[in-house]
Amino acid sequence: MVIVMKSDASEEHIAGVVERLADIGCEAHISNGQIRTVIGAIGDRGLIQQLPWEAMDGVDRAVPVLKTYQFVSREFQGEDTVIPVGNARIGGGVFAPIAGPCAVESREQLFRTAEAVKKAGATILRGDAFKPRTSPFSFQGLGEAGLQLLAEAREEFGLPFVAEVLDPRDVEMIAGYADILRIGTRNMANFALLSEVGKVHKPVMLKRGFTATVDEWLNAAEYIYKEGNHQVILAERGIRTFETSTRNTLDISAAPVVKAMSHLPVVIDPSHSSGRRHLVVPLARAAVAVGADGFIIDVHPSPHTALVDGSQAILPDEFAQLMKQIRGLAAVLGLTV
Amino acid sequence: MVIVMKSDASEEHIAGVVERLADIGCEAHISNGQIRTVIGAIGDRGLIQQLPWEAMDGVDRAVPVLKTYQFVSREFQGEDTVIPVGNARIGGGVFAPIAGPCAVESREQLFRTAEAVKKAGATILRGDAFKPRTSPFSFQGLGEAGLQLLAEAREEFGLPFVAEVLDPRDVEMIAGYADILRIGTRNMANFALLSEVGKVHKPVMLKRGFTATVDEWLNAAEYIYKEGNHQVILAERGIRTFETSTRNTLDISAAPVVKAMSHLPVVIDPSHSSGRRHLVVPLARAAVAVGADGFIIDVHPSPHTALVDGSQAILPDEFAQLMKQIRGLAAVLGLTV
Amino acid sequence: MVIVMKSDASEEHIAGVVERLADIGCEAHISNGQIRTVIGAIGDRGLIQQLPWEAMDGVDRAVPVLKTYQFVSREFQGEDTVIPVGNARIGGGVFAPIAGPCAVESREQLFRTAEAVKKAGATILRGDAFKPRTSPFSFQGLGEAGLQLLAEAREEFGLPFVAEVLDPRDVEMIAGYADILRIGTRNMANFALLSEVGKVHKPVMLKRGFTATVDEWLNAAEYIYKEGNHQVILAERGIRTFETSTRNTLDISAAPVVKAMSHLPVVIDPSHSSGRRHLVVPLARAAVAVGADGFIIDVHPSPHTALVDGSQAILPDEFAQLMKQIRGLAAVLGLTV
Amino acid sequence: MVIVMKSDASEEHIAGVVERLADIGCEAHISNGQIRTVIGAIGDRGLIQQLPWEAMDGVDRAVPVLKTYQFVSREFQGEDTVIPVGNARIGGGVFAPIAGPCAVESREQLFRTAEAVKKAGATILRGDAFKPRTSPFSFQGLGEAGLQLLAEAREEFGLPFVAEVLDPRDVEMIAGYADILRIGTRNMANFALLSEVGKVHKPVMLKRGFTATVDEWLNAAEYIYKEGNHQVILAERGIRTFETSTRNTLDISAAPVVKAMSHLPVVIDPSHSSGRRHLVVPLARAAVAVGADGFIIDVHPSPHTALVDGSQAILPDEFAQLMKQIRGLAAVLGLTV
Repeated sequence: MVIVMKSDASEEHIAGVVERLADIGCEAHISNGQIRTVIGAIGDRGLIQQLPWEAMDGVDRAVPVLKTYQFVSREFQGEDTVIPVGNARIGGGVFAPIAGPCAVESREQLFRTAEAVKKAGATILRGDAFKPRTSPFSFQGLGEAGLQLLAEAREEFGLPFVAEVLDPRDVEMIAGYADILRIGTRNMANFALLSEVGKVHKPVMLKRGFTATVDEWLNAAEYIYKEGNHQVILAERGIRTFETSTRNTLDISAAPVVKAMSHLPVVIDPSHSSGRRHLVVPLARAAVAVGADGFIIDVHPSPHTALVDGSQAILPDEFAQLMKQIRGLAAVLGLTV
Repeated sequence: MVIVMKSDASEEHIAGVVERLADIGCEAHISNGQIRTVIGAIGDRGLIQQLPWEAMDGVDRAVPVLKTYQFVSREFQGEDTVIPVGNARIGGGVFAPIAGPCAVESREQLFRTAEAVKKAGATILRGDAFKPRTSPFSFQGLGEAGLQLLAEAREEFGLPFVAEVLDPRDVEMIAGYADILRIGTRNMANFALLSEVGKVHKPVMLKRGFTATVDEWLNAAEYIYKEGNHQVILAERGIRTFETSTRNTLDISAAPVVKAMSHLPVVIDPSHSSGRRHLVVPLARAAVAVGADGFIIDVHPSPHTALVDGSQAILPDEFAQLMKQIRGLAAVLGLTV
Repeated sequence: MVIVMKSDASEEHIAGVVERLADIGCEAHISNGQIRTVIGAIGDRGLIQQLPWEAMDGVDRAVPVLKTYQFVSREFQGEDTVIPVGNARIGGGVFAPIAGPCAVESREQLFRTAEAVKKAGATILRGDAFKPRTSPFSFQGLGEAGLQLLAEAREEFGLPFVAEVLDPRDVEMIAGYADILRIGTRNMANFALLSEVGKVHKPVMLKRGFTATVDEWLNAAEYIYKEGNHQVILAERGIRTFETSTRNTLDISAAPVVKAMSHLPVVIDPSHSSGRRHLVVPLARAAVAVGADGFIIDVHPSPHTALVDGSQAILPDEFAQLMKQIRGLAAVLGLTV
Repeated sequence: MVIVMKSDASEEHIAGVVERLADIGCEAHISNGQIRTVIGAIGDRGLIQQLPWEAMDGVDRAVPVLKTYQFVSREFQGEDTVIPVGNARIGGGVFAPIAGPCAVESREQLFRTAEAVKKAGATILRGDAFKPRTSPFSFQGLGEAGLQLLAEAREEFGLPFVAEVLDPRDVEMIAGYADILRIGTRNMANFALLSEVGKVHKPVMLKRGFTATVDEWLNAAEYIYKEGNHQVILAERGIRTFETSTRNTLDISAAPVVKAMSHLPVVIDPSHSSGRRHLVVPLARAAVAVGADGFIIDVHPSPHTALVDGSQAILPDEFAQLMKQIRGLAAVLGLTV
């Protein structure tokens, strides 16, 4: 933390900051500039960042220069975390194609989709039984019956599956079915839920909050990690910006940014970020090219009848075509799919 | 909903949309432009908005022109909702000053603050026992012991209090103590939590998600309302933007915008929006001037020792000075404080 | 500037940074943390900020802790800049009401409006002859003929006027008519234009770019100031955010933020920020309450026939009502109007 | 345009809107909903969009459903615009690698870079002689001398070049040297400059304003196009968002979005969007994969001594490695480089 004093700060103000640092066992490096004094705070950064420096007399601003998360950082662990899921793997040079319907609507819809994505080369199935909806009058998912259908599809097609969990009270139940628990974008900062999935022995896919910075996202991952669950997969799914031609703005740079800062794998969701079917294929190709560890895509046999997010689902045939391109691109970059 | 067809959409594509509308009992108004056909969808807007129009062949875009929420709209109820809380009131021409510490830290800190804000004219006390923190290593609040202190302060100073609830499992317990439950900005779209507070017979203060549009905020209020709890207070607390000189950007326009669209009262939080002590007083004055129904402000007897958000807390004396100005401004506008 | 080294930076990397600082006559304060080394760069901040630190081996990030602008800062000049315009004044405890049509459309429209705003208490007239329009097919203003009408209105009603300049080639001509030149939001970073108005002996109102940070805005003011024109009025007019219920989001906090950082006066534009007529009056009241030095408002005798921005113009009668409230609020705060 | 009436709008209000539409030769399609009346305005959309509907009595909102630009739309021209530049081409299935220094600093720096990027496979050289800088104290470019060096490099290495134009008074002079004129991000809405380059017989690369929507960007292209210059290349270079780990957020989705809406070619700038050297290579790969028509990249022989934007420049060797991957990826997608 760098503490920037006001230009008219007195000697007492400066001494006050130094003393406060000493109280918590930290050191002060004082630099007297022409106009202002700037104090570098050296020591336990967790302690330092919690103190209300800007409330102290004579202090203008406190500028953090280091990060607060630790366990999920590259400095804590140099090599990539690789997460095995059934026969599939995420991270460490393997590109994981995850695909399936946004919401499970029926056995027929789920099985048709699962069969198609498996054949095209997906290694993990997606499909939700509990849906968070902006309007309370929208379809909220099939609930536990949906999870049972997903478990049957796993049996039938040999595809492990990922499903969303919305409520801390449902974590144990959903973990009894799903291979990967997913925390949705609206719940990235739902700390009660993060703590709960941190106690489970199943991998967790943590969607980035659509309004979260990369730092906040990694801090959310830290919540899960510190509870003992180290199998965290990060998923970039677009952020909220002023642009309205896409539902959200896919922050594709976040993939290489996060891979430099953290050892956790990162996948990209081209469906929910764009919200538009004709953008899914180009963005999915970009996901491989940028170095992500996988993608998660909505596929639906008849998008125009879908109960949730049909506008962004691609057809099984489009997915099969996409997978051919993905294998070609991955080969150029030395990745296995 | 207006469904904009592609310029090369065929007669069949148009007929497909019309038929789909007929299926759900809705009508189509077809306008053939020089380049494109545009279809107005008339009927139950909940049904219409759920269908994946953009997934249909020949459809370019679907543009919603009406809102999805109903109960919280001005059209549903013309007169202002007024919410009584102990001897205080929020809404209907009464400006409610709500003040107190961000987090309850000790009996001494809470009582000193409560006494001071009561004397200065606050009608409701704020103070949290459970804190959501970006970093898992930060102070998380005193828990139930904090609520007991708040209940004692209510007894001592005659101030009802508002406290945050983070977890659906805690709603009943916290509602046993607090006069108003608060949903924090990070939980505005935590639908499990919204449903739970919707079942309680206590007013709910719903903070705007710092990345939520006004529409999403009103839809979140609708979640609570439709469960049977009609005592919802909206609280604007700043949105996330590119500007970094304040913690968030106070969207002060949201107060008159929401008051035009909804009958619910709206208060403004100048402390958490700005994150900086020297901005709290001017923004609090602006809250009265813009026509909000109250404010909620962090006051702390020694901000530089605060465990949470000290940088934005004002001193009891500053609060007393502010209240004098507030009474003067309110009088000019014909409001009672 | 604080230069944060990578955790695996070598002694040579650190020495490289220190040497580079020495090359430009600056000092390095080295702090060896547990994980990383952090280097404080002390000396001429202009020089330091221009070097590409992040391109040097071993450097992770360079974090600026001080500002780049100098002349417009409070540290350079402690007391408020006060700008006289005809018989009016902006800054230093005087609240300046500026009002008039967005665009000059005709003598009749301009004179009716000027008469009304003068009578209600406005001290400066607004009215543009050159309009920047998003679409090339929209009305672009009356040009020099519009300026002549404005000059006649000044004569008739004793109101100095502010008018926009779009093109560096027009600066001299427009300065021959107008009392204040205005740089519009889209041109805040048009450095060719800023330099040109910096050479003129007329006050300049610098609208904030709707996507500019406060820092960038003050740097733009610095461009004008350093050319020799010290009469700069800052105008906050809303920033671009994800919220769509208003045209832009009025960043009302920017007024007190800027007044703390700079000695220049700041006015608020509630018309162009909100884009909606029913929001103008509450936001104008908030402008006084928050401590701004004035406002600039669109008034039009028949908004529904306006050629530009009619949706946000208020009627002369509404303006007169507003001015009564403004005088009341200003009196409470000890300001003269 | 869809005009949404207030729920309490009278018959007279509705008749007023219909009449106003008739005045401008347009038709009204009236839909009476349960709560409100909604009016579809049919006719010349340019005329309709300019009227201040929201200023009319009884009108709640006016929602545009069609676009304002025409010439640059896919509907106006179905096939891709292909722009020849010297021996190179941009658009129509050819991926154009554009590379060179951000700013021309010296003959030595320029020639070393030009030689290297030519050898690696770049087809067009970048290099600026006039630089817009946020701070007035930063290096502003070599001016015309820089253009002369660029012309010499063209001669020497057979590479046409693109250079930025900042001021309408410089357009003719710069067009005398450069093969492509570039409008920078800060000038995207500088309509005086857009009109000027619209009159020149040289291709124009139009950078997206970092705060411009795709619609505004296409409207800016329309400004140039309607003046008679049809050789417009769009360049996505990141938008301003709340995320700070990159300088701006590359909106990679904008490439396929724009290619669906317009016939103009689109290139991507991974250097200025990210502002960080280690992100340039992955983002450049993503540019090919997403279907862009080229990229424009900063290359510098010694980035740590660069006078402008060194932190984002890659080394000639890194560029050569990148070009190998680009050729591989392009081959998979059937593009020529």
